[in-house]
Amino acid sequence: MTLAQDRPGTTSPARDEVFGAHEGGKLATGLTTPLADARDLSIAYTPGVADVCRAIADDAALAARYTWAHRLVAVVSDGTAVLGLGDIGPRASLPVMEGKSALFKSFAGLDSIPLVLDTTDVDEIVETLVRLRPTFGAVNLEDVAAPRCFELERRLIEALDCPVMHDDQHGTAVVLLAALNGACRVQDRALRDLRIVISGAGAAGIACARILLAAGASDVVLLDSRGVVDAGRGGMKAELAAVTNPRGVTGGIAEALAGADVFVGLSSATLPEELLTTMAPDGMVFALSNPDPEVHPEVAARHAAIVATGRSDFPNQINNVLAFPGIFRGALDANARRITDDMKVAAATAIADVVAGELSPTNIVPGPFDPRVAPAVAAAVARAAAAGAGC
Amino acid sequence: MTLAQDRPGTTSPARDEVFGAHEGGKLATGLTTPLADARDLSIAYTPGVADVCRAIADDAALAARYTWAHRLVAVVSDGTAVLGLGDIGPRASLPVMEGKSALFKSFAGLDSIPLVLDTTDVDEIVETLVRLRPTFGAVNLEDVAAPRCFELERRLIEALDCPVMHDDQHGTAVVLLAALNGACRVQDRALRDLRIVISGAGAAGIACARILLAAGASDVVLLDSRGVVDAGRGGMKAELAAVTNPRGVTGGIAEALAGADVFVGLSSATLPEELLTTMAPDGMVFALSNPDPEVHPEVAARHAAIVATGRSDFPNQINNVLAFPGIFRGALDANARRITDDMKVAAATAIADVVAGELSPTNIVPGPFDPRVAPAVAAAVARAAAAGAGC
Repeated sequence: MTLAQDRPGTTSPARDEVFGAHEGGKLATGLTTPLADARDLSIAYTPGVADVCRAIADDAALAARYTWAHRLVAVVSDGTAVLGLGDIGPRASLPVMEGKSALFKSFAGLDSIPLVLDTTDVDEIVETLVRLRPTFGAVNLEDVAAPRCFELERRLIEALDCPVMHDDQHGTAVVLLAALNGACRVQDRALRDLRIVISGAGAAGIACARILLAAGASDVVLLDSRGVVDAGRGGMKAELAAVTNPRGVTGGIAEALAGADVFVGLSSATLPEELLTTMAPDGMVFALSNPDPEVHPEVAARHAAIVATGRSDFPNQINNVLAFPGIFRGALDANARRITDDMKVAAATAIADVVAGELSPTNIVPGPFDPRVAPAVAAAVARAAAAGAGC
Repeated sequence: MTLAQDRPGTTSPARDEVFGAHEGGKLATGLTTPLADARDLSIAYTPGVADVCRAIADDAALAARYTWAHRLVAVVSDGTAVLGLGDIGPRASLPVMEGKSALFKSFAGLDSIPLVLDTTDVDEIVETLVRLRPTFGAVNLEDVAAPRCFELERRLIEALDCPVMHDDQHGTAVVLLAALNGACRVQDRALRDLRIVISGAGAAGIACARILLAAGASDVVLLDSRGVVDAGRGGMKAELAAVTNPRGVTGGIAEALAGADVFVGLSSATLPEELLTTMAPDGMVFALSNPDPEVHPEVAARHAAIVATGRSDFPNQINNVLAFPGIFRGALDANARRITDDMKVAAATAIADVVAGELSPTNIVPGPFDPRVAPAVAAAVARAAAAGAGC
C-alpha cells in the first residue's frame, strides 16, 4: 500500500481532470458590490465616482482606502524557472501564476493578479514595475531563474515603496526552517547538531542555507551541479562557501551524504536510493523539487525516519502556501514597506508553533489547509513589522 | 418636480454613500473553482498544473484555452483626462478604472483589471504593454489626454496583436451615433439634413465628428477652445476642418449654435441657457460631459425637444457602457486582432435596433441596464469581425 493510498482522495489527479479544471483559467474578477441598476451605477461610476477621484487627487494617501490597489498582490514572473520545468516562458508559466494568485485569495483574503513579462532583462522588469507602481500594493516575485532573481529582487526592493518578496527563495526557506524545527522536536534533537546537505544552489537552495545558518545550524554542505560548493566559486557562492562545509567535504552528493542527518533536495536531480543507505540513522529527507521529488517519498521512507516533499499528495508537505499568504497579509496589514529577515523568522516560528502540540514523524508541519496558519503568520509578521519600524 | 424626481431611486447619491461604496475598492479577484482540500490543490497547483504548463510550452495557442489571459481586458490609463476632472494622475484615476473593469464583468462577463501607469510618455506606455502582452487579451485605453491619446492608440494597435480601443473616443462615438439615429427616427428626420454642432475637439469630439460624417451627416461644425475649427489649425484638426463647417461659420459657440438642430457637448464648457433659445425648433441637446453636463438637462428641456446627457440619473443616458462591453466581447469571441471601423458601426446599428420599436423623446437609446444590448452588440461585432477577416 502506498503512502498516497493511505490518504484517500489525495491520489495524483488524472490528466483529463487537471485540464478540465484549467479550462478558461483559474482566476476571475468580481465586484465587491453589484451594479444592478442606475442608482448603483451613479454611485460606483459617474457621477458619484468623481468625488472619490477628487479626494484622492487632493490626498494621495486616500488611494489606500478607496481603491483595491493597496491590498493587491502582483504575482510577477518571466517564466524562466517554473516549477521543475525550467525556462518555459511567460505564457506557459501563467497557470502557475494564476494558481498562486488563487492561493493568495483562498488563504489570506488578498486580491492578486498575475503579471507575466515577455522580457528577462532585469532593468526592463524593474522599469516596468516602477511604471505600474500605482496599480498594485505588493510584489510576489515567482519562478525567476537564479542568479538573475537575486539581483532582480534586490533592485525591486530598492525601487518600489511596497513589500517585495521572491517566494521561491524566502517562502521555501521559511517553511523548511519551520519543518526542520518540527522534525528536531519530534526526534528531540537540536538544529546545531545536525549534518545538513542541501542539493541545489539556486534561488531556494541558497535562501535555505542562509536561513538555516541564521537559525543556528552549524554544519551545512551546499551542492550545485559541479559538486560541493567551495571557495573556488564566484560571487554569492564564494560567500556561502565561507560559512558552509566546516568539515571540508570534497566531491559530490555521495561524499556529502555519507553520515549526513538531513538531505534537502532543491535541484530536480534524482537521488539514487543507495545513497540514502549511507546517511546516519534517524535521517531526515526533504525532497522538495516539484512536481517530481528527487526521490519518491515511499522510497525515501525505507531509509529515513522523517520524509517530506513539496507534493500535496503525501504527508509533510513543505508547501510555500504555509508562508507567503500570511507573510504578505501581515506586511500589508502593518503597512510595511519592506519584508525584513525578522519578519521571515517570525513567520517560521509562527508556523512551527501551530503544531507544537501535535507533532509526529508524519506531522512536522501544519497541513496546507490548516486554518490556523495564515492568521498566525500574518499576526506574527505584522508584529515583527511594527517592532522593526523604528530601526 | 425635477426629472430626477420623476425617476424614483435615481437621484444623485449622497457623498457618504459614495465613499462607503468605494471603501476597499470595487474590484476583487476570485477563483473559478474552490481550493478546499489537498486534492483541489494537487489539481490547480502542484503537481497537476505542471502538465498544463508543459502543454502550453509545447503549443502556445493553448494559453488561450487554459489561462484567463485571453479573455482578460486591461483597462489602461495614465490618469491625464479623467471624467471632466482633467489630469489627476494614475492613483486618483483608479476608482474610475476599477468601475470600468467592474462594468466589463457585469455587462459582458469579461474579466478585467486596471493597469494605471506612472508615466505619460507614449513610448514608455507602449513598451510597458508590449512587455506585459502575455498578461492580458485586450486593451481598453481610458482617460488619456488628447492629442497624445491618438498617437498612443495608433501605436498600441500596431504593437499588440490583440484588440485595442480608446473607449473615450470610439465608445462615445458609437453610442452618440446610435442615439442620434434614434432621435432622428423619433422626429422622422434624416441625419444628412441636420446642422450639428460639436463643442469640444478632444478625443471624443473628434471621434464623434468622424463617425457622424462617415454615417452620412453633411453639416458638422466642430469647436475647440479657440472657436470653430478651421483650416488654420494644425494636424488632425486641419484634416477635420477640410470635411466640416460647410457653411463657413466663423466665431465661437454662439455663432455656431444659431439655427443649429443638434448640440453635442464634449468639452465641460458651460452652455449658457440663452444660447439654447437660438437653436432651430425641435432641437436636440446632447450635453455629454461627466459628471457635470454642459447644461443641466432640466434647463435644456425648456428649449430642446430631445435632451440627452452622460448621467445615469436622467433619461437618454449616452453611456459608453452600451458599447464597450459588447464590442470587446464580440472582438474576443471572434478572436479578432483588431477592432475595425466596420465593427464599430455594426455596434452602433445593433444598439439602435434594440429600441427601434419603443422610441420616444425620452427613450432614444436603450437604458444602460437593458439586458438585450450587450449580447446584440457582441453578436453584431463578432459577425463584422468575421466578415472582415478576409480583407
